[in-house]
Amino acid sequence: MSEPRVNELMEKIVSLCKRRGFVFQSSEIYGGINGFWDYGPLGAELKRNVKELWWTSMTRRRDDVVGLEATIIMHPQIWRASGHVDTFSDPMCDCLLTRKRFRADQIELQSGTAYHYTGARDTAAGRAVTEPYAVLLPAGKPPESARKTASEFYRLRGLAQPELEGERMEKVENSQRFNPDNGSLLTEPRPFNLMFKTYVGPVADEDNVAYLRPETAQAIFVQFKNVADTSRQKVPFGIAQMGKAFRNEVTPRNFTFRSREFEQMELEFFIQPDEVVEALCGTVATPSGPGHPGEPQRNWGWQMWHQYWVEERIRFYDAIGLPRTTLEEYWQKPEELAHYARATVDLLFKFPFGTQELEGIAARSDFDLSQHERFSGKSQGVFDEDLRTAWGKLPEERRQELSGRYHDARLKYLLRAGVPAEQAAKDAREDADGLAKGQYMPHVIEPSAGVDRLILALVANAYSETTTTDEKGKTEVRTVMRFHPTVAPVKVGVFPLLKNKPELVAKAREVHGLLRGDMLAFYDEAGAIGRRYARQDEAGTPFCVTIDFDTLGETPALKDTVTIRHRDDGRQERLSIAALKDYLIARVR
Amino acid sequence: MSEPRVNELMEKIVSLCKRRGFVFQSSEIYGGINGFWDYGPLGAELKRNVKELWWTSMTRRRDDVVGLEATIIMHPQIWRASGHVDTFSDPMCDCLLTRKRFRADQIELQSGTAYHYTGARDTAAGRAVTEPYAVLLPAGKPPESARKTASEFYRLRGLAQPELEGERMEKVENSQRFNPDNGSLLTEPRPFNLMFKTYVGPVADEDNVAYLRPETAQAIFVQFKNVADTSRQKVPFGIAQMGKAFRNEVTPRNFTFRSREFEQMELEFFIQPDEVVEALCGTVATPSGPGHPGEPQRNWGWQMWHQYWVEERIRFYDAIGLPRTTLEEYWQKPEELAHYARATVDLLFKFPFGTQELEGIAARSDFDLSQHERFSGKSQGVFDEDLRTAWGKLPEERRQELSGRYHDARLKYLLRAGVPAEQAAKDAREDADGLAKGQYMPHVIEPSAGVDRLILALVANAYSETTTTDEKGKTEVRTVMRFHPTVAPVKVGVFPLLKNKPELVAKAREVHGLLRGDMLAFYDEAGAIGRRYARQDEAGTPFCVTIDFDTLGETPALKDTVTIRHRDDGRQERLSIAALKDYLIARVR
Repeated sequence: MSEPRVNELMEKIVSLCKRRGFVFQSSEIYGGINGFWDYGPLGAELKRNVKELWWTSMTRRRDDVVGLEATIIMHPQIWRASGHVDTFSDPMCDCLLTRKRFRADQIELQSGTAYHYTGARDTAAGRAVTEPYAVLLPAGKPPESARKTASEFYRLRGLAQPELEGERMEKVENSQRFNPDNGSLLTEPRPFNLMFKTYVGPVADEDNVAYLRPETAQAIFVQFKNVADTSRQKVPFGIAQMGKAFRNEVTPRNFTFRSREFEQMELEFFIQPDEVVEALCGTVATPSGPGHPGEPQRNWGWQMWHQYWVEERIRFYDAIGLPRTTLEEYWQKPEELAHYARATVDLLFKFPFGTQELEGIAARSDFDLSQHERFSGKSQGVFDEDLRTAWGKLPEERRQELSGRYHDARLKYLLRAGVPAEQAAKDAREDADGLAKGQYMPHVIEPSAGVDRLILALVANAYSETTTTDEKGKTEVRTVMRFHPTVAPVKVGVFPLLKNKPELVAKAREVHGLLRGDMLAFYDEAGAIGRRYARQDEAGTPFCVTIDFDTLGETPALKDTVTIRHRDDGRQERLSIAALKDYLIARVR
Repeated sequence: MSEPRVNELMEKIVSLCKRRGFVFQSSEIYGGINGFWDYGPLGAELKRNVKELWWTSMTRRRDDVVGLEATIIMHPQIWRASGHVDTFSDPMCDCLLTRKRFRADQIELQSGTAYHYTGARDTAAGRAVTEPYAVLLPAGKPPESARKTASEFYRLRGLAQPELEGERMEKVENSQRFNPDNGSLLTEPRPFNLMFKTYVGPVADEDNVAYLRPETAQAIFVQFKNVADTSRQKVPFGIAQMGKAFRNEVTPRNFTFRSREFEQMELEFFIQPDEVVEALCGTVATPSGPGHPGEPQRNWGWQMWHQYWVEERIRFYDAIGLPRTTLEEYWQKPEELAHYARATVDLLFKFPFGTQELEGIAARSDFDLSQHERFSGKSQGVFDEDLRTAWGKLPEERRQELSGRYHDARLKYLLRAGVPAEQAAKDAREDADGLAKGQYMPHVIEPSAGVDRLILALVANAYSETTTTDEKGKTEVRTVMRFHPTVAPVKVGVFPLLKNKPELVAKAREVHGLLRGDMLAFYDEAGAIGRRYARQDEAGTPFCVTIDFDTLGETPALKDTVTIRHRDDGRQERLSIAALKDYLIARVR
């Protein structure tokens, strides 16, 4: 009867998140809304810190990435080009009896005996229904139960007193065709698009349909030319974006991990196709082994860039408190890859409910820009004077080889996209001829991370319990959130030793005022110091500063010093107030 | 024929925003989507800076405000409680001929002769239509033109050869009842709700309707209790939130000023009702005159808090480059106030297209929490031990007076909310009796700002042109964006004097590396120094640093110094590299 241990941990995490104001259920006073979660004061700060670190490391500290902030509602044609209108769906089926809807591939497997019927008739009323129906009974249940359910089904279809017809039994193993609640047959699975749909403008018709973006990436692709034209960047360079995305998940689950409204941090890093690199540099560098390949070089091919970004992203997680040992690097197998992807690495984290993806780093070829070029009719390629010059100096056989490879890749894309063979051959030839003019279509490496699942990973990873025993032998279990100081919501707690000594309070207020301009500092004077430490431990505050009588000069050598207490090991040290701010800034930024 | 001067300025601003990557049209390669705008690299940074400054000044630097980050999609009942489902609408009407939809109150006034018809008949087919119709003709147009339009109308209603009936002429002045394009009568105006609607979950029926939030404020109200219970805050305190909101504007206009997807920065600052302040402090402080009332005091009533927040917000704008002289403080007149509002001040800015609201600071009484208490059935009031104690010590006549006033305000709210008189009387009595138990419903002061319109105000305010004349007498008009350094997207440009001197380039790269960890620094080596200055002026970069031969030690006294050039006055000064970072940090943060 006992729940498995992992769920107990998840329950503790969910409970802490609510109790301390990390995460609340959205609209809780109205009974909540399934798949939506709000961040409370501590959660909002934690999230802000993570986003700020991602943005700073991605854009501000790099020469080759710029930012973008696009709208959530965009032109609907974008989602045709991206494939989301056609293929972003889950298979759904409905119970034929209750109309309850199920995700077809998530129905639990059932075995037993299926009772089939060809139809039913109401002799008294002289009516018949010929719609076939079936009910699954687990082993040992009497057939009457199936007949009762089937009669109900035909009653709903207008027969007051249905007499069942054509009963036939069938052994069924591991089926997903029946409603686990009542055994009723389900409809055939139909695709259900996961994009939230709305209408823009005063008329709600098909011309005005729009979607809430299911990912932030597409906005980057459709603004690629605008950014390239205005930012003085040249391929290779990237465009970073953070923002909300929406997926109408049929079964949102695992707390904030799979929700319907979530936030992404995505980078699209545009690179030269290998043929262009080769034309410019003579050769294309490929990875010589695992690990970080170092500073970007002009002769890197897509594999080097891909490996570079995988390693950069692992470094990022390490820097915010998810060391490499907490992550699993999963290389998608060829049969798992999207058709346009050349390689995808998933970075996984061991959540209490299972090992799940935090981020995917995909080498997406030139698929995305090519799709938008076809759907918008606007050229998405770039011009590179250096390529034109280099091409002019290549021996004819190299030109042939490089343009041949480029041609073949373009042709493969065009044919797969459904462009008629003759047109595709013509277009691919033109594309390949473009190289000589310095024109090409950039490829892209996409590190795509989910903010909310990262927050959940940080919370789960930080969660720990310590058991303390007091002098009376009473044990107490305390929660300590071991957040890395750079992401911790509150950076420092500032306490006067006693609240009823005005000099201590005044000094503590002064220290608090000194720090708050540079970091989130929490002033607390309520309760015993141990209680105040415990409260900050639960909030994940890495440092607590106490102002005591020595601070005021009771021990002259200690005048204007404070105690700093470290969250993770309880260690305390003495530091001068003058040195405090720099000490903390060096650790919390 | 010439456009008015203000539009010329707007055109220049829009053009600069596109050219320099501040703002792009959303989905531009697909022809755009009306009412949606993306922020490019410079715009995204500008917006981030403004939001960060708001957040920091609102939450991190205050003891009495905490943050929240709620979802865009919430429980639909919230928008019933807030009144948005019933009243958040524009009057719309359709052209009876073309179905084109108009916002009824924005149709241009028209005068002329209206030709009315009672119906039409098709004698040959033996059919008749009795729907009345009318066409407005401007003076001088022949009646035939009206008859042609009317015939078209009746043809659309199934008459192949309509013979018009009951023609009657009428003089019309300043009417909004006719389509300005074709003179056709419009339908009667109907309310059109401005909330974007979608469906949550796999079934698109009325049970699953949800709305994209039209404002961020309501999430704060519905999470008020959760935040109050978990954040160790006690009224008076505030909850701040920034985030996207959506309004399906019928006529989005004025660039990013009125768009369909926008961002808000809202604070709900919860205060004690005046009766509670009076019970606790004996008296209630009220404003003694205009200006900032100083640090918050426990005896402040709602008017003090309201004035305080108006002044705090003006200080904020002043600190980011919109001095008080650029703003207009508009006190809404009693007849303009929402029924629950006690006072509202709009802060207006003179945009090129007119003086418009940047922010509203409203004293909203206890309307919002009361509404959610009624609609959710969950108590939204707070308990204050101090109030209970203080109440116990009040003389009976004071209790009578205070609870009487509190009772009357509650009763007024309840009756206006439609609660039946008997129930309202009972509830108001209970609410008033709660004071003795330390219970009350907080009131709220709401400073609510639009991020996008603020960005537009900053851009418009920063925009300036300087005319330079070169030695050949050729004049050139240059754009300088005079952003305040704290909001400027790029804080500093770093240039080597010449790009072909490796020592200069290496030193410039070193200086760039020194700064970029702390601010957005842009390295540029392309073109003459004057060109590089001009580019940074257009981006609004407040400082440019040039590394020249003196930096390398050509003049020994100047070794390891650089030139800092100021954007607004072109002034240049010499500073040591060692002092550079602190110099800039002090000015750009």
